[in-house]
This record gives sequence, C-alpha cells and structure tokens, in this order.
Amino acid sequence: MENKINIGVIGYGYWGPNLVRNFMESPRAKVSMVSDFKTELLLKAKTRYPAIEVTTDCQDLFTNPNIDAIAIATPVSTHFDLALAALKAGKHVLVEKPMTVTTDQALRLIEEAEKRNLVLMVDHTFVYTGAVQKMRDLVVTKELGDIYYYDSVRVNLGLFQHDVNVLWDLAVHDLSIMNYVLQEQPYAVSATGISHVPGEPENLAYLTLFFNNNLIAHINVNWLAPVKVRRTLIGGSKKMILFDDLEPSEKVKIYDKGITLNGNQNSNTDKVYQMLIGYRTGDMWSPKLEMNEALRTEVMHFVECIEQGKRPITDGQAGLHIVKILEAATHSMQQQGQLVKLNLAEVAA
Amino acid sequence: MENKINIGVIGYGYWGPNLVRNFMESPRAKVSMVSDFKTELLLKAKTRYPAIEVTTDCQDLFTNPNIDAIAIATPVSTHFDLALAALKAGKHVLVEKPMTVTTDQALRLIEEAEKRNLVLMVDHTFVYTGAVQKMRDLVVTKELGDIYYYDSVRVNLGLFQHDVNVLWDLAVHDLSIMNYVLQEQPYAVSATGISHVPGEPENLAYLTLFFNNNLIAHINVNWLAPVKVRRTLIGGSKKMILFDDLEPSEKVKIYDKGITLNGNQNSNTDKVYQMLIGYRTGDMWSPKLEMNEALRTEVMHFVECIEQGKRPITDGQAGLHIVKILEAATHSMQQQGQLVKLNLAEVAA
Amino acid sequence: MENKINIGVIGYGYWGPNLVRNFMESPRAKVSMVSDFKTELLLKAKTRYPAIEVTTDCQDLFTNPNIDAIAIATPVSTHFDLALAALKAGKHVLVEKPMTVTTDQALRLIEEAEKRNLVLMVDHTFVYTGAVQKMRDLVVTKELGDIYYYDSVRVNLGLFQHDVNVLWDLAVHDLSIMNYVLQEQPYAVSATGISHVPGEPENLAYLTLFFNNNLIAHINVNWLAPVKVRRTLIGGSKKMILFDDLEPSEKVKIYDKGITLNGNQNSNTDKVYQMLIGYRTGDMWSPKLEMNEALRTEVMHFVECIEQGKRPITDGQAGLHIVKILEAATHSMQQQGQLVKLNLAEVAA
Amino acid sequence: MENKINIGVIGYGYWGPNLVRNFMESPRAKVSMVSDFKTELLLKAKTRYPAIEVTTDCQDLFTNPNIDAIAIATPVSTHFDLALAALKAGKHVLVEKPMTVTTDQALRLIEEAEKRNLVLMVDHTFVYTGAVQKMRDLVVTKELGDIYYYDSVRVNLGLFQHDVNVLWDLAVHDLSIMNYVLQEQPYAVSATGISHVPGEPENLAYLTLFFNNNLIAHINVNWLAPVKVRRTLIGGSKKMILFDDLEPSEKVKIYDKGITLNGNQNSNTDKVYQMLIGYRTGDMWSPKLEMNEALRTEVMHFVECIEQGKRPITDGQAGLHIVKILEAATHSMQQQGQLVKLNLAEVAA
Repeated sequence: MENKINIGVIGYGYWGPNLVRNFMESPRAKVSMVSDFKTELLLKAKTRYPAIEVTTDCQDLFTNPNIDAIAIATPVSTHFDLALAALKAGKHVLVEKPMTVTTDQALRLIEEAEKRNLVLMVDHTFVYTGAVQKMRDLVVTKELGDIYYYDSVRVNLGLFQHDVNVLWDLAVHDLSIMNYVLQEQPYAVSATGISHVPGEPENLAYLTLFFNNNLIAHINVNWLAPVKVRRTLIGGSKKMILFDDLEPSEKVKIYDKGITLNGNQNSNTDKVYQMLIGYRTGDMWSPKLEMNEALRTEVMHFVECIEQGKRPITDGQAGLHIVKILEAATHSMQQQGQLVKLNLAEVAA
Repeated sequence: MENKINIGVIGYGYWGPNLVRNFMESPRAKVSMVSDFKTELLLKAKTRYPAIEVTTDCQDLFTNPNIDAIAIATPVSTHFDLALAALKAGKHVLVEKPMTVTTDQALRLIEEAEKRNLVLMVDHTFVYTGAVQKMRDLVVTKELGDIYYYDSVRVNLGLFQHDVNVLWDLAVHDLSIMNYVLQEQPYAVSATGISHVPGEPENLAYLTLFFNNNLIAHINVNWLAPVKVRRTLIGGSKKMILFDDLEPSEKVKIYDKGITLNGNQNSNTDKVYQMLIGYRTGDMWSPKLEMNEALRTEVMHFVECIEQGKRPITDGQAGLHIVKILEAATHSMQQQGQLVKLNLAEVAA
Repeated sequence: MENKINIGVIGYGYWGPNLVRNFMESPRAKVSMVSDFKTELLLKAKTRYPAIEVTTDCQDLFTNPNIDAIAIATPVSTHFDLALAALKAGKHVLVEKPMTVTTDQALRLIEEAEKRNLVLMVDHTFVYTGAVQKMRDLVVTKELGDIYYYDSVRVNLGLFQHDVNVLWDLAVHDLSIMNYVLQEQPYAVSATGISHVPGEPENLAYLTLFFNNNLIAHINVNWLAPVKVRRTLIGGSKKMILFDDLEPSEKVKIYDKGITLNGNQNSNTDKVYQMLIGYRTGDMWSPKLEMNEALRTEVMHFVECIEQGKRPITDGQAGLHIVKILEAATHSMQQQGQLVKLNLAEVAA
Repeated sequence: MENKINIGVIGYGYWGPNLVRNFMESPRAKVSMVSDFKTELLLKAKTRYPAIEVTTDCQDLFTNPNIDAIAIATPVSTHFDLALAALKAGKHVLVEKPMTVTTDQALRLIEEAEKRNLVLMVDHTFVYTGAVQKMRDLVVTKELGDIYYYDSVRVNLGLFQHDVNVLWDLAVHDLSIMNYVLQEQPYAVSATGISHVPGEPENLAYLTLFFNNNLIAHINVNWLAPVKVRRTLIGGSKKMILFDDLEPSEKVKIYDKGITLNGNQNSNTDKVYQMLIGYRTGDMWSPKLEMNEALRTEVMHFVECIEQGKRPITDGQAGLHIVKILEAATHSMQQQGQLVKLNLAEVAA
C-alpha cells in the first residue's frame, strides 16, 4: 500500500463520490482524506469507506504530509483559492471544470504549478471517453475530410448554478470535447442567452465560435428543457458524424454523406451551379467503442502523470483555453451577440 | 363543375404537383392550367391529369379569363414578378413561402391586392397542421403559462438553394410556426452562419430572436447535415413542449415540468438561492392531433377566402412579417451576429 | 400508347389506387378500366383519372378484348373466383396477397395459368423493397454465416378483417419476406392466438416455424396494439440484422456481433463451458438502400414478365407456399399450439 | 448499530455487490459477512468494505450466531441447498430468482420456512420498481378495462447460462412482473425454442400462456440478439400500455386507444361486422414514476418483514408459482409447443 499515490478529495457533493470511488479502485492510488463543510456528506463517505479520514476543514488536507495530490470537486468560484493553496502546499492538483472563473486565475495556477514542478490537471472527463477518443481519431486521420462544422445541443432540466451562467456549467463539456477533437482555435465568438430567474445568471445560451479554414461551431445549452439531449453533429467534406451520448451503444454514427462540387467554381448563374452541387449518400457505420468508465481512465492518467512527471492531456493550458472562451462568450452574451475576438494562438503557444 | 374556383398553377417542380393534387381533390376547386418552362415536367402533369391544359408560357394563365386564382410554386426570386402580374391580371394569389426577397416587394404586393380587393395568401403550410394548431391552442389558453423560449432545429442534407441562403429556405418554416403559435413580435435578431461552397449563399445558420417579456427564440438550420431533424422545444413557466415532426404519431409531447421560485427573490447568497429554486417533474402527455394533410386544409381555406372575401390566416402581412425577419437576419449574419433591430409593431399595425 | 400493356384493376379501396397510380406512371403500361361495387370509389378514380373507364361490374373487364392483364385488389375470400375468371378470359393476373383462402384454390390457379401460358403473379410487395433485396443478398453471400433465427413483430391498431384471421392479413408479409430472404422450407409450425371479438377470427397470433439446420422462425402479429411496430431480427453465426421498416432511413442495420465457440464441445462442467462460449461485439453498419417505391418495381416486373413470357419472382408457387403455411398455422392455433407438419418440399418441387 | 438486522451474503459475482451495497446503505441493516469461492471477488469486497468479514466457506455464515438473515446470489442450481441450509440454521432467507430448479424444491423451502416461522423471500426485483407498481395500479383500478393480452420481448446478447435454459434466466422477470400486475393464473402453456450451441440449453424461446377470461400472454426471450430490447405491451378493453424499460424516463406510456363494439353481436355477415367494429385513438399519457432503486426498496421490505414478522410481497408462493410455469414451459418446449396444463389454483391456495 505504501507506494500508492495518496489522494485527498475536497468536496463530497455530486462529483466527489465518483472521484473517491475511482481513486479507491485504481491499483496505484488510494484516498486517505475527504473534506466537505457538510457533515452529513462526510457521514455518507465514512459509511461507505470506514478507512477514510473525514474533515470539515480542507486545511487538514493541505497540511497533511502524507497526501501527494488533491482533487477539488467544489463550486467553480472556489476552484482558484483551493487549487492555489494545494499547489503552494506542494500537492499535485486535479481540479473540476471549469478550471477557474477568470483567465488571470487560470494563468496564475499554471505559473504556480510550473514553478513547483507539480501536475496541474483539469477534470475534462469527456475527453477520456471512448466516443471522444474515436471522434478525434476520425478527425486526425482525415476520415471526415476537412471539417466544416461542430454543432452541439446539451440541454436538460436543472441543475441551476448560482455563481456561473449555463455556459460555464454545460458548454464547458462541449468546448473541451471540441477543443480535443478538432485541434483548432476559434478566433472570435458570438453568444446570446437569457435568464428566466430574476437576479440569476443566464439559464439558456447559444454560442457560435468562428474559426478560419471554412469551419464554424455552435453550442446550444439550456438548464430549463423538458427533455435531456446530448447530441453533436460534426460535418466534414468527406463524412459526417452524429454523436448521441444518450444512446446506450452506437453513440457515434459515421455517415458517408455529403455534397460533391464539380466543374467551374467561378460560374455564377443559378443554372450552372445547380449542376455543380451533387449529393452523396452512402452507408452509415457505427464503430465499436472502448466502454471503460471515463473517470477511471482519467484518474489513472492523473496518477501516471504524477508518477512519471508527464504533462496531462487536459492540462492547465487546456483549462485556460476554455476559460478564455467562456469569458469572451459571457461578454458577448451581455452585448446580445456582439462579436468578441479571442487570442488563443498565444494561449496555446 | 362550373361554379368551382378555377385555379392556374405556375411551377410543376417539387411543390407544384402537391398543389395540383390538393386543388383537384378539393370539392370547390379545380386546376385548369399548369405552366412550367420544363416540358418534361408538363408531360408528367399531362400523364396524371389529361384534362389539364399545360403551357411553357405563364402569360397564358394571366390572360385566361376563366382562371380565378393562381398558385405560384417557383423559386423565391421569381415570386414578386409573377405574383404582381397575377394580381394585375385580376387573379387571386397563393404564393409559395418566402413571400418575396425584399420587404418592399412584399409591401407592394399587399398594396396591389388590397387595391384590387383580391385574396393574397402565402403558403405557410405548417400553420395548417394539426400539430401547430394544437400548440397554438396550448399557448393561447395559457396551458404553458408564460412562454420562456422557442428553440427549433431543422437540418438535413440538401437541397441547396442558389438564390437565397438557408434561412430563407428552412428558417421560414420555423418563423411562420413561431409567429402563429406565440403571437409575439421580436424586437431584434442576431444571426451567424457560413457557406461551405465558394460563391454560394450560407448553407448553415443560427438565428436568435429577442422578444420583450422574458422570451427568446433560436433557430438552427442546416442544408449539410447527415441526419434529418425537425425538433422544436417550447418552454413555459407551467409546462413545456417537445414538437418532433418526424414522429409518425405523438408529434407533440407536453411535459408537466419546470422550476418553482419561492421566498425572497432579493436574497443574494448562494445558500439561500439553492433553496429558492425547485424542480417540478410530473406527467408527460401527448394529445391526439388532427391528421388531415395540411395542404388540403390550406387550399380549402384559400378557396373559402376567395368565395367569402375573407382574409387568410397566412395573409400578406404574415408573409411580410417573416420577410422582414429574414432580411434582418441575413444582414446580421453578414456582420457575424451583430444585433439588428426590427420594427414589426408597425408591420402588424 | 398502343403497344402499352393494357391493365384492368378490380377493387379501388385501400390498395387499388396504389396499383392504378403505379401502372399509370410506368412507361410500358396503362390502366384502361377500374371496377368496384362502391360507386363513390369509382367517382374518386374518375376524378383523378378522367381517361379511365369505370364500372361496378367486373365482368366488363373480363369481356373487354383490349385488356391484357387484370390486377385484383379485393378481400381475400374473393381472390380465387376473380383470378380464375380472369385467367379463363385469357388475362394475365396480378393478385393481392394472400393468394387464396385454401391450398386447393392456389393449386387450381397455378394449373389454369400454366395451361393457358399466362402470367400469374402474387402481390408480395415487400419482396420488391430495397431493404428485403439487401437482406437477401446478405444471406445469399453468407455475410451472416449460418442463419440461426428469423424473429418478426408486426403489430398495430386495426384494420380487423372479417373473413380471415390476423395471420392471413399481417403474417403473410413476414412469410413472403422470410421465404424470399432465407430460401429455406419450414417442416412444421406451432401457433397460438386469441380473438377478443365474439364471432370474429383471431386478432392476435404467435407463430413458430421449425426448420432443419439449427434454424427457427417466429412471427408476432396483432391488430389490437397501441403502437405500430415493424421489426425483424435475423440472427446468424457471423453477423445479425435488425430490420426496422419504420425507420425513415437506416432500415437495415447489420451488427458484427455473436458468440464464439472454442475448445472441447464435449466438456460438461459449467466452469469449462463458461470458457467455451465467448461474446463478440464489433461495429454496426447500415447499408444504403435502393429507395424506389416497391410497388413501382413490382408492376414493372409484372409488365416485363408479360412482355417476355418470364416467370415472376413472386409467382403462383410462392403464393401457394405461403397459403400452405397459413393453413397449417391456423389449424395449429385452433389446437393451442399443437405441432402441424408441412410438406413444402413437394410444393417447391 | 447493535439493533440493525445483520446480513450475510453468499455470492459476490454479478448481483452480490448490488445486494451488499443496498443493505449497507439501508438504515436498519448491515452486512457483516460475505462468502464466495472466488478469492479475487472477496478481495474486491474487502477493498470496498474493509469492515466486512469475507470467507470462501459459506458454512461460516450459517454457524455465525450474529447473522440474522442470508441473501443468496449464486447460480440457480445451488439455490435449494443453500437456502435450505440457511433456514435450518434459523436464518431468514432472500434468494435470487428463480427460486429453485424444481417445484418440489420450492415446496420444501416454503414448508421449512413456515415450520420455523422464518421469512422466505424471492428476489423478484422488478416487482419493486416504480414502473411495475404503476402498471399494477392501472390494472387494479380498472383504468385499462378488461385485460386482453400481455406481450413481452426481453432479448440481448449473452450471458448464456449453462444450468438452465433462457426461460429460467430471462422469462422469469416477465413472469414475476406479469404475475404481480395481472393477478391472474394461467391454466396452460405452449412454448417453443432452440439451442444454437451443441449440448447447451435453449438460448432462444417463445412462451404463450393461456388464461381464462379472454386473456393471453406471450414472452419472447433470447440470449443471442444483436440489440437489447425490454418492451412489454399490455392490451386492455379501455386503454393499452407500452412499457419500455430502456427508456431513461417515460418508461410507461398509456394509450387511450382500442376498439369499440356496437350493435348486434350475433350478426354474421361481413358487411354488418364492418359496422360493428370501430377504432378509438385518443391521447397518450406517461405518468411520473417513483425513481428509487428497486433493490433498495426491496431490501428495506425484506428487513421490515423480518422486524415485523410480515409476509413479503414476493414470498415463497410467488417464487413457487413461477417455478411451476418454468417447469411446464420447459416441458412444452421439448415437445415443440405441445400444450401443458398447470394447476396454479391450488398453488395459490
């Protein structure tokens, strides 16, 4: 047991128990301490894992010399302070998404982690699913041809957040998937949305991301929908994908469909164009996917990065990238869709 | 037979045959002449309806004294000239949607029809479906409570238009449904989109419509999608609707779901708010719908308006309203989402 | 026009209009006369096709020297008399399924047609769909490996027949598809069912067909179901098919799934067997299908058989084969599932 | 902790961990010992619940004086010996379904439990789901009218059993649901099936159950299907149910559909009957369901029965009832559908 990575977990609400379970079941790690300010949640943790120490004071984790790394599963607004304290205490950090509330906070955490040579990883869980891995492969291997668009709908009823708008809660998933699958940087965003609860942040939002190279992306998120939808379309010049995460199997369907463009592209009479555009519809194909629990894959990746000093797939830069987009989108939404430029190139640099 | 309304149809491509069939089968009307510049299409019409006269010159319809009304099923860019000529020839007019390419053209047709006391109707077919009629009833009777949002997705592969962008081809359906169901006027729009074919109009677009009274609408249209989707969510303070037009039955599902807001709205601490917002999930209910073919209902309404000098549900004003929105949306899309104001109040006046 | 095959149609109820439309639109045939005892139906035919003669007396078709072939779309109980009269009048015959009410009647029609060298075709429409053609290809090319089972569900609300039980109305479709796709003869059947309307035939039935070679088939048909279902599973040793005829596209899905059997088949301890059976799950694939209207393909095949003296794919033997199974199944159902042997080998001979 | 019911669990394979988790999380019970002959499974249990004692010898549970009750989650063929030993040791028993392999075994267990005044409960988990509870309510309150049929499909790929055929593994679920929902006793069964693996039990089966009162039931089970299906239709004279257990929500849909019978039932001409049968299609309605985990509800019911000396809903009689049907069905299947009579009346007595 001694050479296992020793994990402390802050926050045992919705996501914390999943982190604890996966760390406990991973061969190279164990959870020795959990903190939460709600004692009833700590009691639940204790009942299921009598061996784990619990505390209402997260300082106990920072000061505990046996703890190697800290996983933070608390509201967004608390991520920065907790992650910074953990890093300063010399702990590796796995922080819930979104990484922070501002770009500056994200940059500060990256700086602190690099200075201390600690692993800083953001919990973009979807990146570790078999479906997203497969879609990235299809894009990287040019199976889809040139990518034309990325269009996602992620809606359901609740859970309303109070410290951030719906983009920070739901769109963050789509942005982390898109960022990983497309490997492209948007140069600007336009967002619209509305709040239906006085004094609360927007509970419904629409985000368009502009890319170079004939590519556009759109994300539709909503906390107040009667049905749960998790559907993404990825259009390419050769093939197109439908990713429906609610499908029990066949989550990813690849359609051999598209348009064909022939002849003189400069022609400008309707008649001619009508001959130029053809429609191609072929077979549909749904590849078998790796069905491991994504969080299990992710925590093992976190442990491996700590053990081998590797940089995580979803590192601080990935987290920062998304915080930048969310900041810009929120600004655009306040201006009813006004275009807001991004400078992600330098970020990625 | 003599007292039947005598119809001439211009355009026998995709939609024309449906118009002819429905007029032929309606008890109070008949089609006596069809024009199209493609002789092979006229041959098809003749084979199915030997009694109908066919011509490649639409002037023959305008000059034919026995023809009472003309139905126009041609590309958008030709609607204005054909409709104006028909009205000037003293014929009642049923014109395909969208009504015209510009607001000025629409206003001119309305003026001409009123001057000559002729029926001018726009073929917003969906307004005449059982599903849309039912949704309007649910809104009018306040079954849904206050309307929070209208969110529609209408995507498929093809058919690319060359004279108008995808908003004019697909969003026009959603706008006509929304306009009829909600009975509200948006005050501004923000739209984004892209063209993937050099020199062609946008084949993919996202349109947000801003309303007063805590209401927002969004329309997602795409000519280059691997699957066909026709789904609309309507959120209300009491109930919410899922309208899936591809469902063979149960096209409209009403969910007794939503949020409840209690206590001190001015509170501003997270803890308290978490108590203030509650989630309500009850039964789902799918009402039986009138299953008549919408176009059949529509042509009978057109004939009735001619016979009784009535104003159609989808009259010139309804057509103009939508052209105004499409014009503004196209302008906004060219400015990458820039807000464009509308003045529909006066339009509706 | 003169050298077109001249068709007479008996029965203009539910199916007749589809036959007339497809014959009228096929380049090598035309419909010159339609008979039905309901004058309101004849009026409907006349309105749509003024050129067609109509009559309430089907004798007019038999005696009309210009008519080459007769299509019969009437209740099952009338098929034999009408088809026999048509053949005796020297007309080629296309008769609705099921071919007749008894095996003897079917044999008599085959005999008459052969004697007079006339085409006798049974309207097993599904055989001419792209989906069924594709499934047959997959079986013939051994893509599925050895066929293990054919399991179909065909249920909906209505339309109750009064002269035959639900097997004759719905299972006949599955039997014609199965017969064509599998190319195997069942040696016996066991059927169960019930009638929920006093004095009426069974409105719900379950039919098991026993084959040699490790193959079994089952058909579930029901006139009293709340939803419409058209789903068939075909299990093979290599791959398996899901055929859902209500899917707008992707009607046929092929699953690279199954079990693998290795090692000592004679072992008889649980432990060992658990090692012997493995599960294989690979990709799913949905081939593009020919989307022509099946009835169009079928009527053109009928015309071609007449013109070239060919034997139809769905000839009298195919019709007889299915009547034999329906007779045996009805007998078994009356005995609550008692096994009833078939001797189809000689039939097929 | 002392006054909690003390549970021992035999078998920690597929189902055992679910039993342990639910007992551990129920307020009135705890698990003190788990046995399994596979040490790697015991290690898994120990890792998750360090406080639980583990053993490879189930005798340790029988002889442990602190254990009040034993839950048996082992292969069917071992149920009888383990349950009998547990009862003889004075322990209450919760045994996996099916209860035993023979009727005699089931009767013997019932006798032993009654003699010793111990709780004997069979783990028919589905009976404790919100969906099944709701369907029973709808039947009991006559919402559906008279029940016409119960038709279930339960198919998927694997897991092949070696000691029992597919009826004992899958149909047992449908039988327990049907028995609880309908409250009717079938008087006979007819079953067909096939084994595709030499020397193994049937992996695919079709079971018809005959009832008095115009009611019939059918169950379609298959271990070798490419897709997972869990669909049940319940037809009634007033309303009909579609129960799809794979739906995330809306598992139960109630259709206000059916036939209407009017006028002279004795008439015997087709024409008249066509007037007698009418079709009624109204709204569809999907009630909100209790979404608690069924096994949690069930273990709490087991604990309550022990504490209060109550008879479980799914008691030995319910288990026996289903074993009788499975025995008869297996016998009928061996005779290719031959009718096999049941005498459940006396069973229920």
